[in-house]
Amino acid sequence: MIVETQLARFDSIALESGACLAPVEVAYQTYGSLNAAKSNAILILHAFSGDAHAAGIAHETGKPGWWDNMIGPGKAFDTDKYFMICSNVLGGCQGSTGPASINPETGCPYAMAFPVITIGDMVRLQKMLVDSLGITRLLAVAGGSMGGMQALEWAVTYPDHVVAAIPIATTARHSPQQIAFNEVGRQAIMADPDWSEGNYYSGKPPARGLAVARMVGHITYMSDESMREKFGRRLREKEKFGFDFSVDFEVESYLRYRGSQFVNRFDANSYLYISKAEDYFDLTQGSGSLADTFAGVKTRFLVISFSSDWLYPPYQSQDIVRVLRRRNQDVAYCELPSNYGHDAFLVDVAEQTDVVRGFLASTARERV
Amino acid sequence: MIVETQLARFDSIALESGACLAPVEVAYQTYGSLNAAKSNAILILHAFSGDAHAAGIAHETGKPGWWDNMIGPGKAFDTDKYFMICSNVLGGCQGSTGPASINPETGCPYAMAFPVITIGDMVRLQKMLVDSLGITRLLAVAGGSMGGMQALEWAVTYPDHVVAAIPIATTARHSPQQIAFNEVGRQAIMADPDWSEGNYYSGKPPARGLAVARMVGHITYMSDESMREKFGRRLREKEKFGFDFSVDFEVESYLRYRGSQFVNRFDANSYLYISKAEDYFDLTQGSGSLADTFAGVKTRFLVISFSSDWLYPPYQSQDIVRVLRRRNQDVAYCELPSNYGHDAFLVDVAEQTDVVRGFLASTARERV
Repeated sequence: MIVETQLARFDSIALESGACLAPVEVAYQTYGSLNAAKSNAILILHAFSGDAHAAGIAHETGKPGWWDNMIGPGKAFDTDKYFMICSNVLGGCQGSTGPASINPETGCPYAMAFPVITIGDMVRLQKMLVDSLGITRLLAVAGGSMGGMQALEWAVTYPDHVVAAIPIATTARHSPQQIAFNEVGRQAIMADPDWSEGNYYSGKPPARGLAVARMVGHITYMSDESMREKFGRRLREKEKFGFDFSVDFEVESYLRYRGSQFVNRFDANSYLYISKAEDYFDLTQGSGSLADTFAGVKTRFLVISFSSDWLYPPYQSQDIVRVLRRRNQDVAYCELPSNYGHDAFLVDVAEQTDVVRGFLASTARERV
Repeated sequence: MIVETQLARFDSIALESGACLAPVEVAYQTYGSLNAAKSNAILILHAFSGDAHAAGIAHETGKPGWWDNMIGPGKAFDTDKYFMICSNVLGGCQGSTGPASINPETGCPYAMAFPVITIGDMVRLQKMLVDSLGITRLLAVAGGSMGGMQALEWAVTYPDHVVAAIPIATTARHSPQQIAFNEVGRQAIMADPDWSEGNYYSGKPPARGLAVARMVGHITYMSDESMREKFGRRLREKEKFGFDFSVDFEVESYLRYRGSQFVNRFDANSYLYISKAEDYFDLTQGSGSLADTFAGVKTRFLVISFSSDWLYPPYQSQDIVRVLRRRNQDVAYCELPSNYGHDAFLVDVAEQTDVVRGFLASTARERV
């Protein structure tokens, strides 16, 4: 399945901050076919550093999508049954409008003149995209991590336009620890002189700072146990300790490699904006409590967490489930056993496939 | 109790790497009085960023020591009974010889010409200090985190010279996750152009890189729960979200403050060398197994871990205890309940005081 990224363009979008972006573009891909009733559409929501290329082989790069193990014929999100949509988030750097986009007022990249965005803003742009495809009501929205936040936001903001939501390995409000890890990443980027207050688009990007930020991220995505299994204390290309500051351990070389690779595909300013959007995310804000926020929600839920995920620990999913249950909302919850930590929703998908497939089948059956 | 730091100087020390440092100095403090039999001496071993000032009020700064809640008259380490010693580690920057010390061969600071050091090297210098004080056998060695590694190393290297060891919140071998967090700190420092390959002593230190490294450290020292209790999602001097990149949350301001404060008291190159010493620490190395390493150990042990410590999780202490138990070694183990994470051994000391006090009393009673 060779897929191509498409682009939708809208005149403007009003943001939660009060600012307005005009114009605004959104990059997206689709897989499978929309049925005549337009009732089989599922929107996939990507995590922090994801993009619109969720499945299939990209025409441009030849690479598989980030959730190709979950989306395709016969897979959890079965493209023989469902019409799948995935778009790059607002503020991103993979085709949708973000800080690297040209500001029409100046003819230069927005950089830090880009308005601060929220998860709500991302979802509002997704709604514009879904509307433009002629889809009134999504069968489901689904995503892990920051994608899960968007799934929750969809259910709260557009209760009449989404039948089911699948928030995975996520939270209803970013915790101080989650904010703290994001803040370290931001500080690492902004401490790099090449960041130049965000104005690096005509010069060198803040590669070292962004690499350090990504290294922190990777540690939090794995578990203590999965790191032990993957790396142990194995030495890198050395028979004994080097007694110097070259790479000694495989885990060091892995992190340096992942950090340096990230620089080639991600914009540092997008890192700042998207991480802030995560940190601002708090579904209890405004209403005062999660129960009040969920008062108007009509969506059915499948909430999934992973046992070894310490970045978005199961208790955060359970907080959501408890509130929904108390409202007698239709909610299924699975804490799946996995050693893979937060990354589990991307890599340890056997059981996740079973529960998602079953949930979608019953949702399609019971759909009003 | 006003205390002053003293300095001991030795001609040279041979290091595990094969290198030799000459001369070598060690900064230390003592509290309480050594008895006539010289049988009541306890060596306190500090953690990563600690120093010789463990207790009392420093003559130089007016500040209390880092374990003043544990050391003093009537406290866990009762200075009415015991003669306490604490020294700054080799490679440190608080009086003992380290990368900022003058290399006698060049007349300039060692910087990265400083030899790589190990936990074993730190302990060997401590042994020289203890010998110079005329103490043949320590009643106990005690410390948390990297201090606990030194306590274990003492018991293994000098079985005839230490009656009891109290390793707290520590491990017998640094895990890939622990190495990974240290590596992020090192990369943050080395990514700062002001680091200048370590030659910054005549100019600006790599303050931004070191601050980022310290921020990562602080997150790992706390627990998810203690961060929620301490900060919640409280906003900093703002009534609502700023929708900009100034500080929004108290946790951000706390981390930035602690990061910037650290720069005033810690040398970035010491960060590199000491973190590498931690990463090299592996008591199974050489012998092949912890059981073989502990074969000659005669020390009695009190091993302490804390329930919410995810940086040095209780299972790492239990690994040590299990091996000692299997050898029928005298070992007591307490996993103390605490929400404070790794910091618990420094701040949540009520129960720790009780178990240490009882253990020391029985050690003094049963001392051969």
